[in-house]
Amino acid sequence: MAVIAEVRELGRHVGEEVTVRGWIQTMRSHGRIGFVVLRDGSGIVQAVVGQKDVSPRIWDRFQALTQESSVLLTGLVREDARAPGGYELTVRDLVLVGRSEDYPIQPKEHGVDFLLDRRHLWLRSSQQRAVLRVRNEVEQAIHDFFYARDFVRIDTPILTGAIGEAATTLFEVDYFEQKAYLAQTGQLYVEAAAAAFGKVYCFGPTFRAEKSKTRRHLTEFWMVEPEVAWNDSADNMRLQEQFVAYIVERALERCRNDLAVLERDTTALERVTPPFPRLDYSDAVKMLQERGSEVEWGEDLGGADETMVSESYDRPVFVYNYPGAAKAFYMKENPADPRTVLCDDLLAPEGVGEIIGGSQREDDYDRLLARIREEKLPEEAYGWYLDLRRYGTFPHAGFGLGLERTVAWICGRAHIRETIPFPRMLYRLYP
Amino acid sequence: MAVIAEVRELGRHVGEEVTVRGWIQTMRSHGRIGFVVLRDGSGIVQAVVGQKDVSPRIWDRFQALTQESSVLLTGLVREDARAPGGYELTVRDLVLVGRSEDYPIQPKEHGVDFLLDRRHLWLRSSQQRAVLRVRNEVEQAIHDFFYARDFVRIDTPILTGAIGEAATTLFEVDYFEQKAYLAQTGQLYVEAAAAAFGKVYCFGPTFRAEKSKTRRHLTEFWMVEPEVAWNDSADNMRLQEQFVAYIVERALERCRNDLAVLERDTTALERVTPPFPRLDYSDAVKMLQERGSEVEWGEDLGGADETMVSESYDRPVFVYNYPGAAKAFYMKENPADPRTVLCDDLLAPEGVGEIIGGSQREDDYDRLLARIREEKLPEEAYGWYLDLRRYGTFPHAGFGLGLERTVAWICGRAHIRETIPFPRMLYRLYP
Repeated sequence: MAVIAEVRELGRHVGEEVTVRGWIQTMRSHGRIGFVVLRDGSGIVQAVVGQKDVSPRIWDRFQALTQESSVLLTGLVREDARAPGGYELTVRDLVLVGRSEDYPIQPKEHGVDFLLDRRHLWLRSSQQRAVLRVRNEVEQAIHDFFYARDFVRIDTPILTGAIGEAATTLFEVDYFEQKAYLAQTGQLYVEAAAAAFGKVYCFGPTFRAEKSKTRRHLTEFWMVEPEVAWNDSADNMRLQEQFVAYIVERALERCRNDLAVLERDTTALERVTPPFPRLDYSDAVKMLQERGSEVEWGEDLGGADETMVSESYDRPVFVYNYPGAAKAFYMKENPADPRTVLCDDLLAPEGVGEIIGGSQREDDYDRLLARIREEKLPEEAYGWYLDLRRYGTFPHAGFGLGLERTVAWICGRAHIRETIPFPRMLYRLYP
Repeated sequence: MAVIAEVRELGRHVGEEVTVRGWIQTMRSHGRIGFVVLRDGSGIVQAVVGQKDVSPRIWDRFQALTQESSVLLTGLVREDARAPGGYELTVRDLVLVGRSEDYPIQPKEHGVDFLLDRRHLWLRSSQQRAVLRVRNEVEQAIHDFFYARDFVRIDTPILTGAIGEAATTLFEVDYFEQKAYLAQTGQLYVEAAAAAFGKVYCFGPTFRAEKSKTRRHLTEFWMVEPEVAWNDSADNMRLQEQFVAYIVERALERCRNDLAVLERDTTALERVTPPFPRLDYSDAVKMLQERGSEVEWGEDLGGADETMVSESYDRPVFVYNYPGAAKAFYMKENPADPRTVLCDDLLAPEGVGEIIGGSQREDDYDRLLARIREEKLPEEAYGWYLDLRRYGTFPHAGFGLGLERTVAWICGRAHIRETIPFPRMLYRLYP
């Protein structure tokens, strides 16, 4: 019996007979010779079937193959520089495992709704696989970065009382006899953990019931949120640039093939090295106004403004110290200009826009309570959060990086819906 | 100015003056000498203050310190074998950052509800920190195990249509004009991804609206769920034992101090090496009946039965091939005995019980559809899942390991509520 091999390891089996297991991507015949391309998840390999080399039964089986049929192919491994992957299989035996009829996704162009309805199958397409391999690499890079720096991972709850960013975009859950909400962020919880562990982070799904249908919005998306005791806003930005540079470097180093499949120009990514430029919010507003934006001092930057700023730099750029009124209640007032808070957004280049929001946190009990009241937030839900300022308060800062936006940027995809295996959007819950 | 140092790195600064930043765990005085223990998240260090060595102002500050006050301590690092951590600080300067008054958690015993109400502070206690450091190590070990084996991580959705394990334990969400449910498992989604990537896994929070108040239940808990194309049930059990042995070994290797804080007897963990014993379900029932259990062939094993089985072995034990009627609809019928399915539960020793449920999946379209109808599941929600059997079906198998139960076992904690930073239980949503 031939040894079973994954396509990725065929190089170790040249001159041997192996069995590969997978799905038929394409098949064609030239008279008495047939070619199939098989995908097994680890790679793709071309297999050649000669009518004279196999029994009529095997030849007939080959002729009847269809796209996405699952098969076992047994044959000799040969080196072939022209073949995708560099190896070719000369088939001796073919076993059909699962027939596939009328596979809906064809090499032609399909509409995106058609594809999203069939996301469970669309995942098998080469570009989708490349994007999700980059996502996989970025996720491992996230964990490796923080693990190597002695951060403790803290899994924050999804089911919460009303606490988070904005009450208007909460998903409500029936929690036995209570009302619960899906977490918009883990930040408030990692702040508590920072007093126990010093350096912590969370990584998991977060939820926003936003009625936005843009290329940058999902209702369910993943965020990584580090929080560091004793860091101020400047430390925070330094950590962000090191972190982003590390992620991008890992993708460049280990996902070359995937980025090639996506036809990503990697020169823009190779420039992503610290330090990143830092642009004061007021200077950003001035620059935008000069270029025709109608933004006024005091407002948050919109998507178009962010794009305009990010297009002016060849690497990610920090915009820092926004007006407090435009930002969340937990950000620390800037002692040098109390109209502003000690925060930053990191805008990715090539028009991508915001991938990180970060800030030093308000560590003064009275100021924080005043902000909670100003925002008319339910004070009782924030009692435990205020406790962190009551029992040994401490300067601390952190940020949230949106995984899907980051992967979209690295992959050069315009829409983040392709960067998550099963996107959830307004009115889309299936599959 | 003294260099800022983390407690974990004091060994590099012997004979130098450093500043450490953290929280006061304990303080006491002997006449003109004072001792404080400071925690900074990376470790704890004892600091000594001599009245004659500091100014009266610093001495007064020291005398006024309270539990959990946050401070900067500056002083000389000395080696001292008797000190916790092996180093001691001779204080020259002390800055109070955040005063803490009437910190609610005292070294005395508190009731568990009292502590859970203050979970945001309880995290600072040494045993809780040790448990969550082990959790952190186990999580990184999970990712490292699969990354090294070329699995692709697939993040499965939390918001789903009605699909999963049991309709009776679903949390319902208002999703714009639709009803959504919180995912009980990512399995069905990783099955789809296995046809694209071969070897995949998901890791994230899962939800069960169970009205159970036992030491083994949380309403929100984390699961890791690998899925492997072409694996059968025997392959699946081999992967499980390798995986569990790897996790336990990592914790033993890298969390010695934490396990010591928890007074965990590690000899039981050192025995966790493959192969694990395998017990056929029918044999398990016979054994249980002989020992007085009232379990009948055909029923699932209850918690007490699992405990009885697991106490009979000195390492984890597989119970495999349960009756189909007692298990989920997606498990593959056992061709050798169609009353049973190709599945396994892995029971951890020392009376811990189930930490894994795994199975080969039903890959036959007609049989799967029949099972969905038998269980009266909403057929339209499973259309995409059936598609996996329509377009190139393939043998595959996977499992789910419950993170909190596994961490509880490794840490020797009876209740899993301490193994997650912010536990969610029946009627507990706060903090």
